[in-house]
Amino acid sequence: MDLIDLGPFPLVDGHAEAKRRDGADPLRGFAGWFAPIEPDLIYLDGNSLGRLPAATASHIQEVVEHEWGERIIRSWPERWWDLADDIGSSVAALIGAEPSEVVISDSTSVALFKLTVAALQARPGRRRIVTDDLNFPTDVYVTTAAANLVGGREIVTVPSSDGIHGPVEKIIAALDDDTALLTLSHVVFKSGYLYDMARLTRAAHNVGALVLWDLSHSVGALPIDLDGAAADLAVGCTYKYLNGGPGSPALLYVNRRVDGDIDNPLAGWWGHARPFEFDLAYTPAPSIRRFQTGTMPTLSLSAIGPGVALTAEAGIDRIRAKSIGLTEFFIELSKVYLEPLGFQLASPPESADRGSHISLRHPDGWRIVRAMIEHGNIIPDFREPDNIRFGFTPLYTSFVDVHTAVIRIVTLMSAGAHLGYGNDRTPVT
Amino acid sequence: MDLIDLGPFPLVDGHAEAKRRDGADPLRGFAGWFAPIEPDLIYLDGNSLGRLPAATASHIQEVVEHEWGERIIRSWPERWWDLADDIGSSVAALIGAEPSEVVISDSTSVALFKLTVAALQARPGRRRIVTDDLNFPTDVYVTTAAANLVGGREIVTVPSSDGIHGPVEKIIAALDDDTALLTLSHVVFKSGYLYDMARLTRAAHNVGALVLWDLSHSVGALPIDLDGAAADLAVGCTYKYLNGGPGSPALLYVNRRVDGDIDNPLAGWWGHARPFEFDLAYTPAPSIRRFQTGTMPTLSLSAIGPGVALTAEAGIDRIRAKSIGLTEFFIELSKVYLEPLGFQLASPPESADRGSHISLRHPDGWRIVRAMIEHGNIIPDFREPDNIRFGFTPLYTSFVDVHTAVIRIVTLMSAGAHLGYGNDRTPVT
Repeated sequence: MDLIDLGPFPLVDGHAEAKRRDGADPLRGFAGWFAPIEPDLIYLDGNSLGRLPAATASHIQEVVEHEWGERIIRSWPERWWDLADDIGSSVAALIGAEPSEVVISDSTSVALFKLTVAALQARPGRRRIVTDDLNFPTDVYVTTAAANLVGGREIVTVPSSDGIHGPVEKIIAALDDDTALLTLSHVVFKSGYLYDMARLTRAAHNVGALVLWDLSHSVGALPIDLDGAAADLAVGCTYKYLNGGPGSPALLYVNRRVDGDIDNPLAGWWGHARPFEFDLAYTPAPSIRRFQTGTMPTLSLSAIGPGVALTAEAGIDRIRAKSIGLTEFFIELSKVYLEPLGFQLASPPESADRGSHISLRHPDGWRIVRAMIEHGNIIPDFREPDNIRFGFTPLYTSFVDVHTAVIRIVTLMSAGAHLGYGNDRTPVT
Repeated sequence: MDLIDLGPFPLVDGHAEAKRRDGADPLRGFAGWFAPIEPDLIYLDGNSLGRLPAATASHIQEVVEHEWGERIIRSWPERWWDLADDIGSSVAALIGAEPSEVVISDSTSVALFKLTVAALQARPGRRRIVTDDLNFPTDVYVTTAAANLVGGREIVTVPSSDGIHGPVEKIIAALDDDTALLTLSHVVFKSGYLYDMARLTRAAHNVGALVLWDLSHSVGALPIDLDGAAADLAVGCTYKYLNGGPGSPALLYVNRRVDGDIDNPLAGWWGHARPFEFDLAYTPAPSIRRFQTGTMPTLSLSAIGPGVALTAEAGIDRIRAKSIGLTEFFIELSKVYLEPLGFQLASPPESADRGSHISLRHPDGWRIVRAMIEHGNIIPDFREPDNIRFGFTPLYTSFVDVHTAVIRIVTLMSAGAHLGYGNDRTPVT
């Protein structure tokens, strides 16, 4: 990395204020539980891939060297057989679910596929699937794939009027007695818009439809009450705010109220009631385990545990309070420092409508992100066409990080550091 | 473990012969590349879960601490983006495939689901799916799930006459112009029977059907020539003879000849041509990568590399030669020592018809396995109702292991060590 010498950052009031807020932060000690990164690096992409909890590094070493290396196959009964259920149970406590309603299973996309097909099969007479155009694209691909396989279904994509806010009223209006399923991202990947889960779920139930929530950008960042909202189905990533590691398998939730109507359409031996009898006839397990299919990727699965434990220890209400503090501070600073430079808020201004990341749009967005990474030692991410996403992970992002990042961006822009980049869109995720 | 003191093992001619064969074994040095296990333990379950290559332990530590911990999101472009393709290419070299025909993707069951659905969709007018009753049960569940979703298909399960040999002639007779797909385990999980891939593939093609091979019990244990056999589709485990670690994701093969007819029915963003444009419309990648769905479990994926490299270095022909040597030696010793005790060979006697594991049946099979594990320091596995499976992994199983295991079983049986166990079928996998 070619670090431009940015000189000492201006010690404005903002910095003192950031330090003051860090001093008052009850979660300030949690950053110390993560493996260190370059001392000067500000990582604002935990909404894409969370950092490594130090306990995970030693845990994985134990899993590899002892559980696999020394115990080999004996670790199945000793350690691994119940692992996806056990971690599922600890995730359940973070999302307002019973332990019996959550299991860890496959990639988020595959988990979504299973539950989408299951939902459509549970509403055979209904043709419509309602979603919005803010949904994560892979959710749309997977929903389309599921609809194609089940057949005779139509996807209704309700447009957002501003690309930021979920089109709540239009979605509610689109629900009718021909609707099988409402499927939405709880927090929208680009703008960070946070749907009112209880209200949308109620609206879907009013017409007899099922609801499937993708919690990828909300789980671990804010309180979720699936059971309280009477949500039917949910999936979510464990590698963002839960810090489970690259591509760690997904959470899968089925509300016990609809449990009897929902079958795993992708039956495999890990969902069998008695997998080790190797019966040619499939008998689903009498538990959430029946949504399993194949053997779990155990190293990636094992890596989820310590991050979930850290989140539980911090407490989701304190995490949410700090998340709001961080995002509001960032918006406040953006107004002063960044809007004059052409940045524009592309997230809901009200905290109640927002998750834990903020998008700013800028016509030079791509080049600015490159400059931030390569000269500013800040890692955000970029989403086409011009969105810079800043993720704030309350467990390890500090108020000083937020302030320093903003000041560095100002310095980079003043120095014209971004002007050295073309428009080559090499993915940085 | 309550180890009964078995005393010094009889130093019969068999032992000297085993030592002689080990001395002449060109692969004898490879066991040293695996992480050590208890010195006295004989591990004969590599057909279920392969041992840990020492290089994998240090590699995973590097992946966790450096790639994830320090580089975080930057590792996607730096390391992870092409990993499933790169490892797929190295596996391709072991199975007679081009690098462009193989990718690592999901669990074996999910990979099988995708290719089964794809095959059925590529043969829309044909109703029949032909398999045998020796197939791995999860393959049958997954095939059934795929058939149910696609609809209007019927599974024809051809029975084996002896539960050991694949019913080759009856399968060929069952193929007709209403057959969409022939789907078989290349090596049968219980008996170890090895199908003639070229012959069965030809027979299926003669009626216009596609063929899907499950290589789980053959890949890494014997030479496979998918392209040479003109096979259409294949999947396989990477955690058995390839030593990729518990639940490591599966290999997925699509022959370039049928590539144009086969679509991924479970489209997700990792199979998109331009995943980071986040387009709501799905455009499949113009390569085998389009069979990807969600984000890969990267720790489990990364663990596959070193085991594949060891296999390549040993050479699949030398591996097969030693595998035949080990299994023939075991059968030879079984005839002398074990058949008089009521054991009965439940694998094909001819090496050409067999993979790298041997099943012995015994009415007390379950209790004997328990005694072997808990008192004999031997780990085989058990398959209902009475099969003891002995897996021989040429990379780390020695001829002395084979001989010692047999003598220990004799000693255990003479001492009646198995008689202390009931029939409680707690799974040992």
